[in-house]
Amino acid sequence: MIQLLASTRSKEYPIYLSGGAASDVGSLWSSQGRGGKLVIITDSNVAELWLRKVEASMDDAGITASSIIVEAGEAAKSLERAAELYSKLFALNVRRRDAVCALGGGVVGDLAGFIASTYMRGIGLVQVPTTLLAQVDSSIGGKVGINIDEAKNYVGSFYQPDMVVTDPDLLRTLPDAQLKEGLAEVVKYAMLSGEDFFAAMESSYEKFLGMDMAFVEPVVRRCIEYKLAVVSEDERDLGRRAVLNLGHTVAHGIETAGGYERYSHGQAVSLGLLAAARLSSEILQLDAAYGERLRVLLEALGLPVEMHGVDPALVLRSMASDKKADDDSINMVLLEELGRPVINCDVPPGQMEAVVRGLGED
Amino acid sequence: MIQLLASTRSKEYPIYLSGGAASDVGSLWSSQGRGGKLVIITDSNVAELWLRKVEASMDDAGITASSIIVEAGEAAKSLERAAELYSKLFALNVRRRDAVCALGGGVVGDLAGFIASTYMRGIGLVQVPTTLLAQVDSSIGGKVGINIDEAKNYVGSFYQPDMVVTDPDLLRTLPDAQLKEGLAEVVKYAMLSGEDFFAAMESSYEKFLGMDMAFVEPVVRRCIEYKLAVVSEDERDLGRRAVLNLGHTVAHGIETAGGYERYSHGQAVSLGLLAAARLSSEILQLDAAYGERLRVLLEALGLPVEMHGVDPALVLRSMASDKKADDDSINMVLLEELGRPVINCDVPPGQMEAVVRGLGED
Repeated sequence: MIQLLASTRSKEYPIYLSGGAASDVGSLWSSQGRGGKLVIITDSNVAELWLRKVEASMDDAGITASSIIVEAGEAAKSLERAAELYSKLFALNVRRRDAVCALGGGVVGDLAGFIASTYMRGIGLVQVPTTLLAQVDSSIGGKVGINIDEAKNYVGSFYQPDMVVTDPDLLRTLPDAQLKEGLAEVVKYAMLSGEDFFAAMESSYEKFLGMDMAFVEPVVRRCIEYKLAVVSEDERDLGRRAVLNLGHTVAHGIETAGGYERYSHGQAVSLGLLAAARLSSEILQLDAAYGERLRVLLEALGLPVEMHGVDPALVLRSMASDKKADDDSINMVLLEELGRPVINCDVPPGQMEAVVRGLGED
Repeated sequence: MIQLLASTRSKEYPIYLSGGAASDVGSLWSSQGRGGKLVIITDSNVAELWLRKVEASMDDAGITASSIIVEAGEAAKSLERAAELYSKLFALNVRRRDAVCALGGGVVGDLAGFIASTYMRGIGLVQVPTTLLAQVDSSIGGKVGINIDEAKNYVGSFYQPDMVVTDPDLLRTLPDAQLKEGLAEVVKYAMLSGEDFFAAMESSYEKFLGMDMAFVEPVVRRCIEYKLAVVSEDERDLGRRAVLNLGHTVAHGIETAGGYERYSHGQAVSLGLLAAARLSSEILQLDAAYGERLRVLLEALGLPVEMHGVDPALVLRSMASDKKADDDSINMVLLEELGRPVINCDVPPGQMEAVVRGLGED
């Protein structure tokens, strides 16, 4: 069992990483010595696959645990669902010494994490991420939140978990589309980390797609370690943490313009990374060969490298929504080299337009 | 202008205290150098009295400010109202660099503070408390939150403001009932602080009731300083902060048993302080004379010293709701002397029953 230590301004906590770790959630929580009861929050898809295993681990460890199953899907991240969960925790007589265990992907982690951060002004939180995206990204770093009708993730907290248990074996049952969600983030980490990680993905990506754990587990670890290093310096996203937005500025524009239907988050990130690479070459003189290598890698992973069915003008408008004037430049993370991100790069609107249009027009 | 410094683990911030300070909210916020716009959240009662003054101070300071008025009353502290406020902030294009200004009493401070703590994972927060309770207690220390249908303050955060502006002149228009809400807390601080503060209240309480600012302002300051000292040591209420619960264990039982109608919070605290004094004499040998002095002071302030119209059995049951078994003792703050609180005192259920019944039976 690999144990990584997350060290942020507000809290230190362990991240346990190992194939099969899902069977040990109970004993690992016991070993934290917190006591209290635990309420597992999961969704209808994950419950069928993994809930029994995690519940059994609680039984084995002598932990009093209950489970709440929410409907799978982004709609769960609403204030209405949150209100129901608060009432359920109250009915279960959950108190400050108790904890929530988020068993699921990004939606469950964000929702259950937000509930834990606000119920009685904050109770314990265990993250057991079941998707690649959640394992390498959303389960660590403490960003939790829900949506309002008007916009995603507009209500939330920075709230670190007390423990994360990451079991890459759970990825074996992940639907292909969800695996790709995570792979786009893995490629992002590879670009941020440098040649070594990037080249490993180029040469061995098939091992990842084939769920060869001897490759998958170290890759997941590398992503976690990168994120931990960033978050430990900048928990509240005021500076360096912005590097994690590589590719996400354009990606959010694409997601929004596509009504969150045409492209999934991961697919949009794939296109966003390509746009970031292009702009990095134009503005920071990143070797253009990386853009081509990136395109080949993303394509090999089954991620989109051309944009279709979304109006580039709409993408640009979505990205511009928080600027003050139309001629303001857009603030982005770019790379001066693989492994050397630069935050707060100003991209002139004309240049942005050319690159977004270059992703593909209908 | 008196400037006190709140220093907690998560944040340092100034508390400005002065008669007339409400006219300076804008310039004081400007002096923080944060920039961004400000959204004043207030209630329908306070808006009539003080909103124009605070808005004018924003104008004078060149700050872009908008105002949102919620219906006065505890019902505003709901998830439904919170959802409406999030949408309004979104419509006003409020971003992370912007801030909310809570202009009002405890309800507005709790609600607006919770919104500020969760909108975009936390934006700026200015507290301008307009009631005595809010000035000496709820505006400082960072406890913010809303109610769920089942229970009060069950959803919230620890979220420190960036600035507090306390203007005792605002208390001049406070309805008598609301002044008494706060006076019960002032007496609590006097008991926690010691003979000096307590004796000052005994000899000069009429100056407080008559709003003699030469007495009111230093009293408010003393309460704030006491709370700041406690909160700076124990922001998240894991230890010493519990001293602030003096009188509140029994008070919550009385409030709940009376359906939050028979006795207001302040009235219930008055009775709770008397119960705490009695138990302190029985368990920690506090001189019984203090109980009598306390009774005289509370009565002089117009606060209840006998309980009527609430079933003591119901009070005891409400207090017991988070115990595991009926024969568990109840955990309380007691005093070994004036100014020397002791947390985590175990009160046997029989002794508690005798004291609660001693408050008055119907």
